[in-house]
Amino acid sequence: MIKVSIIGSGNVAQHLISAFTAIQKSSSKIELVEAYSRKKESLIHLLDNSQIITDIQDLSEADVYIIAVSDDAIATISEQLAFKNKLVVHTSGSVSVDVISDANRKGVFYPLQSFTKNKAVDFSTIPICLEAENATDFQLINTVAKLISSKVFAINSQQRQALHVAAVFVNNFTNHMYQIGKKICDENQIPFAILHPLITETAQKIATLSPQQAQTGPAIRNDSKTIAAHEAFLTDDNELTIYKILTQSIQNNGKEL
Amino acid sequence: MIKVSIIGSGNVAQHLISAFTAIQKSSSKIELVEAYSRKKESLIHLLDNSQIITDIQDLSEADVYIIAVSDDAIATISEQLAFKNKLVVHTSGSVSVDVISDANRKGVFYPLQSFTKNKAVDFSTIPICLEAENATDFQLINTVAKLISSKVFAINSQQRQALHVAAVFVNNFTNHMYQIGKKICDENQIPFAILHPLITETAQKIATLSPQQAQTGPAIRNDSKTIAAHEAFLTDDNELTIYKILTQSIQNNGKEL
Repeated sequence: MIKVSIIGSGNVAQHLISAFTAIQKSSSKIELVEAYSRKKESLIHLLDNSQIITDIQDLSEADVYIIAVSDDAIATISEQLAFKNKLVVHTSGSVSVDVISDANRKGVFYPLQSFTKNKAVDFSTIPICLEAENATDFQLINTVAKLISSKVFAINSQQRQALHVAAVFVNNFTNHMYQIGKKICDENQIPFAILHPLITETAQKIATLSPQQAQTGPAIRNDSKTIAAHEAFLTDDNELTIYKILTQSIQNNGKEL
Repeated sequence: MIKVSIIGSGNVAQHLISAFTAIQKSSSKIELVEAYSRKKESLIHLLDNSQIITDIQDLSEADVYIIAVSDDAIATISEQLAFKNKLVVHTSGSVSVDVISDANRKGVFYPLQSFTKNKAVDFSTIPICLEAENATDFQLINTVAKLISSKVFAINSQQRQALHVAAVFVNNFTNHMYQIGKKICDENQIPFAILHPLITETAQKIATLSPQQAQTGPAIRNDSKTIAAHEAFLTDDNELTIYKILTQSIQNNGKEL
């Protein structure tokens, strides 16, 4: 039985609490001991009152403490922990394992997903990226991760940094492409839903084709007539700049890219 | 019984032939008369030898002729048609209905999807955008479209131009974001598949949240520390330029956008 405690009450903390609560109903391998939140109200819909700790000094014994707070708060929170030489991991994609206080053993338990409040996620398909300072600690968090997800990876801090940048491109920037697409639709009285199947298909293609194989459109075809028509259509300077730079980047693929 | 003929043998033509061939097995409302291709070999895997016409002058009587050729060839092909005052439509997202020769009645039958060779598509979920010069012609192509798709829209030439630009953003540019993400993964010995669930989730969110509501990441959080770390990480000038411009565009949302 591995005892886990969660430190934090935000999006990631809440999704982890839900996942662990669900899994301990069917598995005796894990116990969610408690969670720390400054305010009980943040977690009372997920846990019994007795499982919510509001003074970080009151945290009970556990095998692993998962700090799921904002990047900037990880160092401070880890320094407030009253115990020593326990396994403490954070859940951030962009922060080194080293920011955790030296008083404890360090690790990372990073679920690579974009969590949105009030939108349920199926944790079993979310990749979890693990890092630990020694093999025993790695095995422990590996066991925990595999209980809630079928996709568990060993990713060191440098790789995690790269992965986080890559995630910004495929998630944050892609969503911004959707936003520009929606704006163009709105301005022309076109329901944005008309583009949903294309958006889904574009994402699904990646499962069977490399992005390079999947690339279509005027840029890769060097269709200068269509590109000129699109550039003439775009009256927003920002959209035009993005159109030109991404068209050029697609066309320069293999050189500048 | 509506008689349809296809002019062309490329991706869109082949997907339309497959869709009409499939539907006429269960519906007596439609008949795929024949298809025109310069070379029989291009279509022989889809149609009987007798249904493939290699001289455009030999096209038989039909109720609607669907020109599915490259944008630049539509005008020329439509001028080669031997008949007059029949309904002729093209399938292009970026070309006006007017490019079709004045000798016939004009329309557009634009399936809004990115067709990749050798990748089957489910036509029933593909939006089809229709345009015609009069109500009778519109009703005819509306009946045809509804036989193969449940998502049929009336979209005029100006809206279609806007839709095509929007599609470049949500499809071509999004795929390019995937390509940059994959390159960053490759360079750091990270399997790109680790990002697939995030890519899928990002696309699926759009069905329930607006892109504005769904936006996450360092840009929208104004997390300057993470943004600076990402910019320091990116050594490729092109990737860095794209990162900066899209970060700024996300942050300026509502102003420049």
